[in-house]
Amino acid sequence: MVELSAARDVPARHSEADSPRDSLIARFGADRPLKLDAGVSLSPFQIAYRTYGALNSERSNAVLVCHALTGDHHVVGTHPVTGKSGWWETMVGPGKPIDTERYFVICPNVVGACMGTTGPASTNPKTGKPWGLDFPVITIRDMVRAQAMLLDELKIETLFAVAGGSMGGMQVLQWAASYPRRVFAALPLASSTRHSAQNIAFHEVGRQAVMADPEWRQGRYLVEGANPKRGLAVARMGAHITYLSDAALHRKFGRKFQDRENVTFSFDADFEVESYLRHQGITFVDRFDANSYLYLTRAMDYFDLAADYDGVVAGAFKGAETRFCVVSFTSDWLFPTSDSRAIVHALNAGGARVSFAEIVTDKGHDAFLLDEPELLAIVRGFLDGAARARGLSARR
Amino acid sequence: MVELSAARDVPARHSEADSPRDSLIARFGADRPLKLDAGVSLSPFQIAYRTYGALNSERSNAVLVCHALTGDHHVVGTHPVTGKSGWWETMVGPGKPIDTERYFVICPNVVGACMGTTGPASTNPKTGKPWGLDFPVITIRDMVRAQAMLLDELKIETLFAVAGGSMGGMQVLQWAASYPRRVFAALPLASSTRHSAQNIAFHEVGRQAVMADPEWRQGRYLVEGANPKRGLAVARMGAHITYLSDAALHRKFGRKFQDRENVTFSFDADFEVESYLRHQGITFVDRFDANSYLYLTRAMDYFDLAADYDGVVAGAFKGAETRFCVVSFTSDWLFPTSDSRAIVHALNAGGARVSFAEIVTDKGHDAFLLDEPELLAIVRGFLDGAARARGLSARR
Repeated sequence: MVELSAARDVPARHSEADSPRDSLIARFGADRPLKLDAGVSLSPFQIAYRTYGALNSERSNAVLVCHALTGDHHVVGTHPVTGKSGWWETMVGPGKPIDTERYFVICPNVVGACMGTTGPASTNPKTGKPWGLDFPVITIRDMVRAQAMLLDELKIETLFAVAGGSMGGMQVLQWAASYPRRVFAALPLASSTRHSAQNIAFHEVGRQAVMADPEWRQGRYLVEGANPKRGLAVARMGAHITYLSDAALHRKFGRKFQDRENVTFSFDADFEVESYLRHQGITFVDRFDANSYLYLTRAMDYFDLAADYDGVVAGAFKGAETRFCVVSFTSDWLFPTSDSRAIVHALNAGGARVSFAEIVTDKGHDAFLLDEPELLAIVRGFLDGAARARGLSARR
Repeated sequence: MVELSAARDVPARHSEADSPRDSLIARFGADRPLKLDAGVSLSPFQIAYRTYGALNSERSNAVLVCHALTGDHHVVGTHPVTGKSGWWETMVGPGKPIDTERYFVICPNVVGACMGTTGPASTNPKTGKPWGLDFPVITIRDMVRAQAMLLDELKIETLFAVAGGSMGGMQVLQWAASYPRRVFAALPLASSTRHSAQNIAFHEVGRQAVMADPEWRQGRYLVEGANPKRGLAVARMGAHITYLSDAALHRKFGRKFQDRENVTFSFDADFEVESYLRHQGITFVDRFDANSYLYLTRAMDYFDLAADYDGVVAGAFKGAETRFCVVSFTSDWLFPTSDSRAIVHALNAGGARVSFAEIVTDKGHDAFLLDEPELLAIVRGFLDGAARARGLSARR
């Protein structure tokens, strides 16, 4: 059985949600509530974010980076909780495709997350205790609405670009649909206009794994000093398989044994792939909040851009002036190329300007996070062209 | 959260393992131990099985049906535990492709299972209590070795055919490798000569889900009157997704809501696919033993036919006189067509007689269990041809 002794204690996890380290915080008081799709308002609330590079005097070079389900606003540099590198070091930084010597990069932690933006692990001002399941169920549109409030706060009217993969790509699409005039260029990577039945099913298994853990305590684990780390680790292990590909797992692990010559006729991690997965589970629970996992997976399940436009996704992009760069990966079976093609078809039907690339790789869904040269070249080329069209100087 | 109140109580589950209803039982005493790959012997032990049809006077018309991970020997007819139909009603019966008016069908419950053949839920004769984790880890070869002992007991020297899908197909391949002279025809369906890294990974998540349940009690739940039903349900839910396909889930469920007009902004089963999955979890724990799930998934993970033949799977079939019918399904991503092609290549290299069909269907891995007309026609045609070659009369 997986041993999970290293999980951070309850006060630490709660404290990061309220007072995130190495983060900027935008606070929205009672006068600026976040109106949620659920029909209630979140108020007060806060957004934790980081910026990289500098805003130009025309305030026209801002790039919003939207993180995925288990990501956060620590895009590059040392993560204050894990001590590891940021999640998009290959893409963002000086001289990188999203060049911080040219663009002003902003990445907010999404609403519902656990790294400083208000979510279920944050303190509920009404009770002085963690929100838990009293936190309202949020949507991708809610995340984007909150991000728009942050941009208002930063006095950025128009984004040069908004970019993200997976759940980040959903936010990109929602941005283009909700605020078309505020987005000059949009890069939805490995994403979809709606979560598929299979993806909802995988998320539901993850949620059931969390909720099956008695330590989850009906979502009150932070208040009661418990920690549903076993359930969350199982959820992560299952999800992690879906981020990779059969081919990549075969190439990386095959049937190789873990520090042994043969099978042990036991339930130990005989195979490297088992050991690897257990490690993924163990390290995840050390940095992520179980309830946040429920809320963010739910937001992805609920995402269905067409539903807001009489079932026709093209309606979301009607007359769009935003230019789009859509990217998929051949071995991504979570958000397969057919999902990206559906985005492209909707954009074409809406008359939008769109370039599309399907990149051949065995790295699966996670390819958007990895050092995938073709992806990096495509994003660089697309942004260069958009920057010329926008009249941005080559480099500051 | 899934409510699982309907799970059978502990004595009932234990009793089915020792004294299965509606089953024949072959008992092997101390003089006939089952030698296991783990290096120990299982003795005494028993095999629960069922037969359909009649053995001919030449004892040449026996068809061994091998069940999959969560199947059992109740191939057709009412299942004594679930009250539902058998798992292969489409394939086996009077006038069906495996025609019980022509063939004598034998299906044993595998070693390690929980429906009457000795497994972790059976009574350990040394202690008088359920084996639990003291039960030795078993392999596909152990299952087949036990089945060969059953055939000896039944005085059946040669099988006309051995057939099965998934884990059943692994047994078919092992039969052909271990006892080539005892198998006239072999039908490995939706199977593989070795379990892939991705499949091992999915199994490991399922095992971790079971073992994360405190009610599992380190495997001693039967002795302690507990029941790790939540963990087992999560394992089943995750596995069930892998038995289907993205396309089938989309066709069957899409993003349809369950008895509601819109999302509820909660963690209820808003989507039909969630409700369906929860139902799969709930009904499974009512009939299956959690430790058996660990043992049988492990046996599949360990399966690697090539390992016994210096890493060359063709060695398993060298000079084989058995005729093979290999079938795969286009949408099966658990045992994809490439796995079946590898079987075919190995058989070709070994000089065996083999016919191969890849059937176009969106039904995924479970297609071998379903009313798939092309599959049924292929099996019928293959068996008819083999029966002629074997000199079996058309119908009794």
